[in-house]
This record gives sequence, C-alpha cells and structure tokens, in this order.
Amino acid sequence: MSEFDLIKRLQERICAPAAAYRRQCVVGIGDDAAVLAPPPNRQLVVCTDTLVEGVHFPIGTAADSVGHKALAVNLSDLAAMGAEPAWFFLALTLPAADTEWLERFAAGTGQLAADAGIYLAGGDLTSGPLNVCVTAVGLVETGQALRRAGARPGDLVVVSGRPGAAAHALAIMRSGAEPDPRDRAALDFPVPRLELGRALQGLATSCIDLSDGLLADLGHVLDASGVGAELVLYSLPCPDSMAALPQRERWSLQLSGGDDYELCFTVPAASSKQLDALAGRCNCELTVIGGITAERGLKLSEPGGGDYRPARPGYEHFREDGAGQP
Amino acid sequence: MSEFDLIKRLQERICAPAAAYRRQCVVGIGDDAAVLAPPPNRQLVVCTDTLVEGVHFPIGTAADSVGHKALAVNLSDLAAMGAEPAWFFLALTLPAADTEWLERFAAGTGQLAADAGIYLAGGDLTSGPLNVCVTAVGLVETGQALRRAGARPGDLVVVSGRPGAAAHALAIMRSGAEPDPRDRAALDFPVPRLELGRALQGLATSCIDLSDGLLADLGHVLDASGVGAELVLYSLPCPDSMAALPQRERWSLQLSGGDDYELCFTVPAASSKQLDALAGRCNCELTVIGGITAERGLKLSEPGGGDYRPARPGYEHFREDGAGQP
Repeated sequence: MSEFDLIKRLQERICAPAAAYRRQCVVGIGDDAAVLAPPPNRQLVVCTDTLVEGVHFPIGTAADSVGHKALAVNLSDLAAMGAEPAWFFLALTLPAADTEWLERFAAGTGQLAADAGIYLAGGDLTSGPLNVCVTAVGLVETGQALRRAGARPGDLVVVSGRPGAAAHALAIMRSGAEPDPRDRAALDFPVPRLELGRALQGLATSCIDLSDGLLADLGHVLDASGVGAELVLYSLPCPDSMAALPQRERWSLQLSGGDDYELCFTVPAASSKQLDALAGRCNCELTVIGGITAERGLKLSEPGGGDYRPARPGYEHFREDGAGQP
Repeated sequence: MSEFDLIKRLQERICAPAAAYRRQCVVGIGDDAAVLAPPPNRQLVVCTDTLVEGVHFPIGTAADSVGHKALAVNLSDLAAMGAEPAWFFLALTLPAADTEWLERFAAGTGQLAADAGIYLAGGDLTSGPLNVCVTAVGLVETGQALRRAGARPGDLVVVSGRPGAAAHALAIMRSGAEPDPRDRAALDFPVPRLELGRALQGLATSCIDLSDGLLADLGHVLDASGVGAELVLYSLPCPDSMAALPQRERWSLQLSGGDDYELCFTVPAASSKQLDALAGRCNCELTVIGGITAERGLKLSEPGGGDYRPARPGYEHFREDGAGQP
C-alpha cells in the first residue's frame, strides 16, 4: 500500500466527525500544512509527546493500545493545563506498511479522538523503527491555563483516581505473569482527565499530570512553586487489584511507577468542601493525600508516625534541599 | 547527563532571543504544555515532519545538518503556505545522551531558528532509534494562506532557485565519491524560501514546496487544482555543478530527485512582469518552466519538440488521466 493510500485510510478511520473544533480546521490533511482558525479570546495550549516501541510500550503491544495511548498521553497534558482539546497532528514512523496493524492503530486513536472531541488536522507518515509522535493543540480562556507554579503553603495536595495500577501491570508482565485485567486496562488504555482539568480552572493553584510517577511529578510542582509538601501515605487511594500487596511494595509502585495519567493538583484548604461535588461532576475519585509546606522538600509520613524513604534508585532527585530534578 | 540537563542545554542553545513571536509564548518549556497567544486576525498554519536516520539522511550525517534540516523541512512547508514562522516544537528520540552530538545538533537548529525568527516553545526528549520530529506553527492573515488548489489554465508554472543539486549530491555519495561542495550544502543545509512565500500572497494562484521532487510535487498541485501542465524542459534552470551532466541524467535528478525545498507556484500570465522584481526582493532566482493546461496530466516537452518520458520507476502516478498519486 502506498504512503498516500495509508494516509487516506488513517484519515478515514480517525475522522471524529463530531469533533468540537472540526469546522475551525480550515485546511486539513492534503496540503503543505493545516490552517486553523482559533476563536477569539483564547490562548493555544500545545504539547508534543513521543511513544517509542520497547521504551514506552512493550514490543508486541496491541496496535489499538499504541494508537490510544499516543493520543492519551498528550490529552493528559492538555488536561493538566485546563485546556479544551481542539486539533492534533500525528507523525507516524512505521517499519512496514502493515495494513492490519494500521487499521487497529487508527481504531484506537480514532475512538479516543471521538471521545475527546479532538480533530486530526495533519500528520506525517514515514518508514523507520516504530515511533509515534503526537502534537496536540488545545484552547484555554486567555490567562486561565493551569500551571505547575502556584502551589502555596497550606494548600491541599489532591490526586484523581488511584495511581499505581499501570505500574503494577507492567511489573507483573515483566515477571512473566498475566496482570489483572483492570491493571492492564490502566496501562494500555489510560483515560485522560479532560473534564476534571477544565473544572479545575479558577480552583486549583497548580496542576500536573502523572506520567513519570507521583513523586517525580509532584516534585516538578514543588520546584516550580518554590515550596515543599508532606504526603500522608495511608491516605493514598489503593487500586482494588493492589489491596493484597505488602504496603511498601504498593507504595513504591504508587509513588514512582509512572504511566498513571491522573491529575495531581493543589487547592486552598478552604476549597476542600468543593472537592466532593467536583468528583461527582467529573465522575472520578478525588483524594486529599497531603499538604504544601513552606519548607522545601517532600516528606512522606508513614502511618506509625515515621518517615518513609523510597528505596528505589531514581529518587535522589528529591533531595531535602528540594534542588533536585529528574 | 540526565534528560533534564539535556533539555536545559538544548533550550539554551536553541534560544532565538530575537524570535518575532517569543513574547507571545506565554509559557514555554518546563510545564505540561506551552501556552501561546496568537495575535488577532491571524490563522494558524501548522505542519509536522519527521526525519529518520538512514531514511531521510545517511547514517553518520553531521549533527548540525540533522538539526538544521529537521527545522528547515518544516519551515519550507510554512513558506509554501505563505506563513510567517512563530513557534516550533521538537520531539527528539536519541539512542544515547551524546553531549557532543547534541551540542552540534542544537547549534544547527538554533542557527536556523534565529535566522527564521522562530521560537522553540516546547518538546520531548526520549530514548530510541534516532528520530527527529518537528512541529512548526506559523501565522497567516485570515484567509490568505497559499494552497495547492487554485492553479488555472493559462497560469505560468514558476520555480525558485535551481532544483536538482541535493539529489545530485546524494547520487554522487551513493556512488562512493565526494559531491561538489555546493551540492552538498544544498543537501545538508537547505534554505527555506520564507520571504518568497510571504511575498507570493495575493499573487500566486497555487504553491507547494519541493520535497519529493518537482514532478511529484507539481502533480499534487495539478490534482488539487483539477488541471494539467506542460513543462518546457530546456527552461529548467541548471545548477552550475550539474552543467556537465548528460541532459537526460540531469533532468531525471531535477524532476524527481527531491530534497530541493524550493517553491513551485503558479501565477496568472498577466503577472509575469512582476516576477523579476519579486526575485530581486526575495534574493532568489525565479524561472518560468511551463504553463497550466485545462487538459489533465503533465506533459514534458523536449527541446527538439518531442515528449520526454521519465524512465525511473515511481513516475507511474503521473498518468495521462491525472488520477494518480504517489
């Protein structure tokens, strides 16, 4: 199949006819570039994220999962900024023109694009080792984007959903066993928290999505905001599939496993009473897991009153002086 | 070197402090996404193009050339739409954190970004087989983007510069010899025709950039416009380095070699007298190489009066009925 035929097929499968900003895509696929007409009084929110086979997903991962996840990780970034999805661009590097693989890939991307109301405005198709690069464009009311900077001492640290399931699935798969289907779904088909991100505008003082693991990502918020935090580990919401794990093993996966695509955000303590209504409206659990401190660094309190110190390497960037970064 | 250090270093090297739209980048590298504030009465022009090692450039190509070219091919697409460069995003997949390679890469990208006045607003850095994906965002006055569709019978077909030099360099390198430095420069450091693209607004009836070769790319214009064309081969401007080549060998490289990044556009015949002034203003040669016909298909006239038929495979998509596509 020629490059042109492949592009046509992708375009048809990833159509999202009901996408919110389809009509503002004045020129789509088929010219040298797309022409987009953003509405007035909006700022653009743009992110780009690449998935590489064998690095971001295991070799042999189902094509619909690859297609879903490549878009999902970008939508998750838009969610973390409080943006509404508008258009995306797909740069696909494929080792071969495998029609069956491509159909499944497009089905995965297309389903999520339809769910999120985002429109495929352009892309690039080339040969080489499997690499999927998505650039997503969202829109936000001028000045209203959620930032990493902005957390203040006394703010509550809140997390959506129950982090850890994707990392649990990956750990089980690496041991050669079959993961719990719920964990596997969390790994292969993460659902970006777009509605929550939009609803956090005007409420959250900072926000980030969890891609590298709660500790690393919250660390970015603390560094950007110039503050510290104390997390109460027993308040970490536990995925059902992980209830039987030893506590420290569970914490390790939940704190540093990555691939969660939940949102972690801060709100003023006075706003805590709004969280229940927000959770109901956005159809996701919201859990207060700690608070922001003026003192830099990240403290992890154990139920017994002691301080938990993550054992795995890679944590050294959370130094007491808060100066580290991954 | 950590991913964070690499990103910091790239950011510093690809700064383009004088970039025209730097100040409209409200949030740049360092958050979940960039926030951009486009000026009113503008449409966005967005393209994405990937370079893969061993596919788009030979293994061992100097890093500054890779960095330059990855941005240049995208700027060339913006030029073909008549857009002004504003911001770009760099998704870089690297086999190893090779600091020296990265410095040279950043120098190549940074120099062109500074020349073009485009600002690095975000990106992604990951490990894997070398793959460079750039997404470029330009701006155009509402409704003024140049399109592939729009060429009309009687229009003149014009090309900028002298196509063929990059393909000539590649052919010589593949034979194991050292190409002419001028051809090598055309291959490794193509200069996008941004000024020309901007100046063609309101003048050109259609426009495309030459990346896949003159025949293939002009074919896209003809298909999109629903017309045909007749090219007069002896009017094809010849790079100095190719003057000694047998005519048919030269034509083959010039018509189908690709990697030219010149613009091919159509203008009404009555506008031909404006071309000389335009060439002077944009500091590039402009040559009329043929005309648009109502009859579909692409005819190539030889000096003796016969019709030239390209011999190399890949041309079959230029069928007489004009229905083909690569």
